[in-house]
Amino acid sequence: MKFSQIIQPLSAVATGNSLTSNPTCDPELQGVAAVEEAVAGQLSYIEGDKFAAEVGKTAASALILPPNETLQAQATERGIAWIATSQPRLVFAQAIALFYQPFRPTSEIHPTAVIHPSVQVGQNAYIGPHVVIQAGAKVGDDVCIHPNVVVYPEVQIGDRTTLHANCVIHERTRIGNDCVIHSGAAIGSEGFGFVPTKEGWYKMEQSGYTVLEDGVEVGCNSTIDRPAVGETRIGRNTKLDNMVHIAHGCNVGEACAMAAQVGMAGGVKIGNRVILAGQVGVANQSTVGDGAIATAQSGIHGDVEPGAIVSGSPAVDNKIYLKASAIYKRLPEMYQAFKQLQRRLGKTE
Amino acid sequence: MKFSQIIQPLSAVATGNSLTSNPTCDPELQGVAAVEEAVAGQLSYIEGDKFAAEVGKTAASALILPPNETLQAQATERGIAWIATSQPRLVFAQAIALFYQPFRPTSEIHPTAVIHPSVQVGQNAYIGPHVVIQAGAKVGDDVCIHPNVVVYPEVQIGDRTTLHANCVIHERTRIGNDCVIHSGAAIGSEGFGFVPTKEGWYKMEQSGYTVLEDGVEVGCNSTIDRPAVGETRIGRNTKLDNMVHIAHGCNVGEACAMAAQVGMAGGVKIGNRVILAGQVGVANQSTVGDGAIATAQSGIHGDVEPGAIVSGSPAVDNKIYLKASAIYKRLPEMYQAFKQLQRRLGKTE
Amino acid sequence: MKFSQIIQPLSAVATGNSLTSNPTCDPELQGVAAVEEAVAGQLSYIEGDKFAAEVGKTAASALILPPNETLQAQATERGIAWIATSQPRLVFAQAIALFYQPFRPTSEIHPTAVIHPSVQVGQNAYIGPHVVIQAGAKVGDDVCIHPNVVVYPEVQIGDRTTLHANCVIHERTRIGNDCVIHSGAAIGSEGFGFVPTKEGWYKMEQSGYTVLEDGVEVGCNSTIDRPAVGETRIGRNTKLDNMVHIAHGCNVGEACAMAAQVGMAGGVKIGNRVILAGQVGVANQSTVGDGAIATAQSGIHGDVEPGAIVSGSPAVDNKIYLKASAIYKRLPEMYQAFKQLQRRLGKTE
Repeated sequence: MKFSQIIQPLSAVATGNSLTSNPTCDPELQGVAAVEEAVAGQLSYIEGDKFAAEVGKTAASALILPPNETLQAQATERGIAWIATSQPRLVFAQAIALFYQPFRPTSEIHPTAVIHPSVQVGQNAYIGPHVVIQAGAKVGDDVCIHPNVVVYPEVQIGDRTTLHANCVIHERTRIGNDCVIHSGAAIGSEGFGFVPTKEGWYKMEQSGYTVLEDGVEVGCNSTIDRPAVGETRIGRNTKLDNMVHIAHGCNVGEACAMAAQVGMAGGVKIGNRVILAGQVGVANQSTVGDGAIATAQSGIHGDVEPGAIVSGSPAVDNKIYLKASAIYKRLPEMYQAFKQLQRRLGKTE
Repeated sequence: MKFSQIIQPLSAVATGNSLTSNPTCDPELQGVAAVEEAVAGQLSYIEGDKFAAEVGKTAASALILPPNETLQAQATERGIAWIATSQPRLVFAQAIALFYQPFRPTSEIHPTAVIHPSVQVGQNAYIGPHVVIQAGAKVGDDVCIHPNVVVYPEVQIGDRTTLHANCVIHERTRIGNDCVIHSGAAIGSEGFGFVPTKEGWYKMEQSGYTVLEDGVEVGCNSTIDRPAVGETRIGRNTKLDNMVHIAHGCNVGEACAMAAQVGMAGGVKIGNRVILAGQVGVANQSTVGDGAIATAQSGIHGDVEPGAIVSGSPAVDNKIYLKASAIYKRLPEMYQAFKQLQRRLGKTE
Repeated sequence: MKFSQIIQPLSAVATGNSLTSNPTCDPELQGVAAVEEAVAGQLSYIEGDKFAAEVGKTAASALILPPNETLQAQATERGIAWIATSQPRLVFAQAIALFYQPFRPTSEIHPTAVIHPSVQVGQNAYIGPHVVIQAGAKVGDDVCIHPNVVVYPEVQIGDRTTLHANCVIHERTRIGNDCVIHSGAAIGSEGFGFVPTKEGWYKMEQSGYTVLEDGVEVGCNSTIDRPAVGETRIGRNTKLDNMVHIAHGCNVGEACAMAAQVGMAGGVKIGNRVILAGQVGVANQSTVGDGAIATAQSGIHGDVEPGAIVSGSPAVDNKIYLKASAIYKRLPEMYQAFKQLQRRLGKTE
C-alpha cells in the first residue's frame, strides 16, 4: 500500500483534526511497528516526549507525528513520510486496521455444533465446531461463535457479537450487539450466595439476570455472576480485561475500563467512564462515581467521589497516597529518630 | 402462588424460629426481588437497620421481616403480607427456591459425548454434548455433567455432583457427593513444583491426589492443584468463589468460604469455618486456625490463631490494622510535624 | 522396586554430587511420600533443619538425607535405608518420576477432532476428542493435545509440547518445543488495547505475535496476550503458575518463575531468572532486572535492579519493607506517643 493511499482512511478517524502531511515522499508500506523496532517499509508513530528522539533514529519509512514542527522537519530531512495529528495513537490504531484484521471465519454452522431445534439463529452467523447452544436461546445476525463455546438455555446474544473459543454463557444472560467475549470467560454463572447457618452454608439460588449492553468486551477467563434477584449489568462500551471478576448484582456504568485481575464483590455500583487499574478490589456494596480512577492494587471500601483518583489499600486520595507511601519507606528511620527524641526528652507526660 | 401457600415451606428452613405472620392479607405472588426494586406481586425481605425504612416505601406485596413489631405494624398498615423471623435472609433464600430452580437438564448421555468403555456411570446421570470421560473414571448417580467438560482417567465423581460447562477434572482426583464445580474450573491439575538447579528448573512430577469432600463448591475458573506427594484436600461444605487458587498440598477444612481471587501457596493448612475475603493471599506452609477471618486483600504469612480477624499485608490483627491504616493517611502531616519538632529541638543526642 | 535399584537412576540427576548410601538394608519400595506421612515401604526425604527430627520418627523405609553424618547414623540405627546428597529435594523429584508418570495418552488422532486439511501434524502426535485445529496450523512431533483444545489458524506448536484440556491457542502464536500449557489457559488472545476518545474507547487491533520459547510452562487459566505490534515473548524454560496474566508486548526472560495470580501490564520487560511470588503486580512499561525477586503481593512500578529483592506495594527494597511493615503495626502507639510529645512541648515553631 502506498503511503498516499492511507492518508485518506486515517483522516477519517481523527475527527476534528485536519491532518497535515509530508508530500515529498510516498513509500510503499508493508506494515506497522513500534518505532524502536520498525524497519524500512513500515509505518510507526510518535507519542509523547519519551519517544520524540526516535524520529532521529527510526528505520521506519513513515511516521504518524504529533503537531510538532521540529519533529516534522526532522522527519522530512531524513526522508521519512509523515502525517501529523493531535492524536497519534488513535490514528496509529486506525493504521493497524488497514494492514490487519483479526481472524473472522466465514459464515457457516458447523455440522458438529449441537444446537437445540428451538434456538433462533440470525443471518450470516458463524457457529464453529463443537459449539453447544441449548433450548430457547436466540443468536443475532452476523454473530461469530468460535469452537467449543457453550450457551445455556434461553440466552440472548445480539448482532455482530463474537464469542471466542471455550467461553460459557449461562442461563438468564442477555448479551447486546457488538460485544466480544474472549476465550474462557464465564458469563451469568451463579453468584456466590450462601447464608451462614449453624449447620453450615445454605445456598441461595441465583434467580436474577446478567445483562451486557452493546459494545461490551470481556477478557479471557473473566467471570460475571448472576445475582439472587435483580440484575448484574455492564453498561455500553465498557471494556474488561482478562481475569476480571464481577460479582452478583454489580451495576457497572458505560465506557468504563477495568484492567486485568480486578475484582468486585457483590452489589457494587460503578459509574460511567470509571477506570480501575490492575488487581484493584472493590468491597461489597461500594459505590464508585463517574470518571473516578483507582490505581493498581487499590482496595476500595465505601464510596469514591466522581472524578476522584484513589490509591492504596484501603484506598485514599491519590495525592495523599503518593506522600504516605513515600514516607512509608522512611518509617524505620523516622521511628528510630522518634525513639531517640523520646529517650532524650524523657517519657514523662 | 398464594402467600398463604409459602408460609409452610418457608417455616421448614427457619429451624428453631416459629414464624409469625400477618393473616390479614394473602396476595398472589409471582416472584421475588430486592426490596428497593420489588413491584406489586413480589416477595422481598428486610434485614438490618439499613433497609428498615424500605418497609414504608416498597411496592412489594409481601415481606419477610425481622422480629420487630414496629416494622410488622407498619407493613400491616400498608397492606403488605408478612412473616417474621430472626433470619430473614435465610428464609428469603428458601423463598427464591420456591420460585426458581437452576437449569438441570433431563437425564441422558448425549451421543456426542466420548466416554471410554471402562467408565462406570451411575443411574440417572446427565452427560452433555462433547463431554469427554477417560478410562477408569467413575461417575455417581444423578450426576450432571454439562457440555464440553473433560474428565481425565481414573477420576471419581460422587452422587448428585454437577460439573458445569468447560471445567476440567484431572487424573488422581476424587470429588465427593453434592459438589458443584463451576464453568472453567480446573481441578487436580499439576502443582507448580520445580526445583531450582544451576541448569534451570527441574520439574517435580505431581504424583499426589486431589480430594474434594461432600458438598464442596468451586467457582468459575478456579484452580486446585494436586501435589507431588500426599493430598490436596478441601473439606466438607467448603465454598470457593470464582478464580480462587488452591496450590498443591493445601489442606482446607470444613465449611470455609473463600471469596473471589483468593490464592494460597503450597502446603497451607486452613481450619474449619475460616472465611477469606476477596483477593486474600496465604503464603507457603501457613496455618490458619478454625473460625479465623481475613479481610479483603490481606496477605497472610505464618500462623493465624483460631478465631482471629486479620487484615493488611502482611496481615495483622484487624483492630490494629484499622488504627494503623487510619494513621497511614496522616503520615504526611505526622512526618512534617515530626521534622518541625526535630528542627526546633535540634538533632543532637 | 528394590532400594538398591533406584540408587543408580537417582545418582544421575545429582550432578556433581557423589551419593553416599547405607548398604546395610535394601527394602522393597512401593512409592514416595512426605516424611511426616510416609508408611513402611515408602521413600521420603529430609531437607532443612525443620524436618531433621523426622528421621527419628518417620515410618518411611528409605530416606534421601542431606550430607549430615548424625542424621545418617540415626537412620542406620533405625534400620532405614538412605542415600545422602547435598540436594535432597532435587533427588526426591527424580525419585517421584521413578514411581509415577503423568497421564500421557497413546498416539492417535481422535475421529471427533476437527482438523483443517491444511494443518500439518508431526509424527506420533496425540490429538484428543473434540479438539479443533484451524487452517494453516503446524503441530510438531510427539505433541499431545488433550480434549476440547482449540487452536486458531496459523498457530505453530513445537515438538513434544503438551496442551491440556480446554486451553485455547490464538492466531499469530508460536509455541516452542517441550512446552506445557495447562487447562483453560488462553495464549495469544487480543491485548487490551483501547484508545480513549470523546466518543469512548477506540479498539486498537492487535496485529502482533505471541512467542513461547522452548520449555515454557503456562499454568491453568493463565492468559498471555498478543500485542498491537511486535511480540509478546516468554523466554526459554520460564514457568508460569495458574492464573498468571501477561499483557500485550511483555518480554519475559529465560528461566523465570511466576507464582499464581501474578499480573503484568503492557510492555513490561522481565530479565532472566526472575522470581515473582504470588499475586505480584507489575505496572506498565516497568523493567525488572536479571535475578530479581519480588515477594508476594508486591506492586512493582518503574525499574527493579538486577538481583534486587523487593516487597510491598509500591515495592521497595525487601530489607526496608521488613522494617517498615514491622513499624506499621506500631503506628497507632507511635502516633499516640507523638501526639503526647507535641502536647507536652507545645506546637509552636
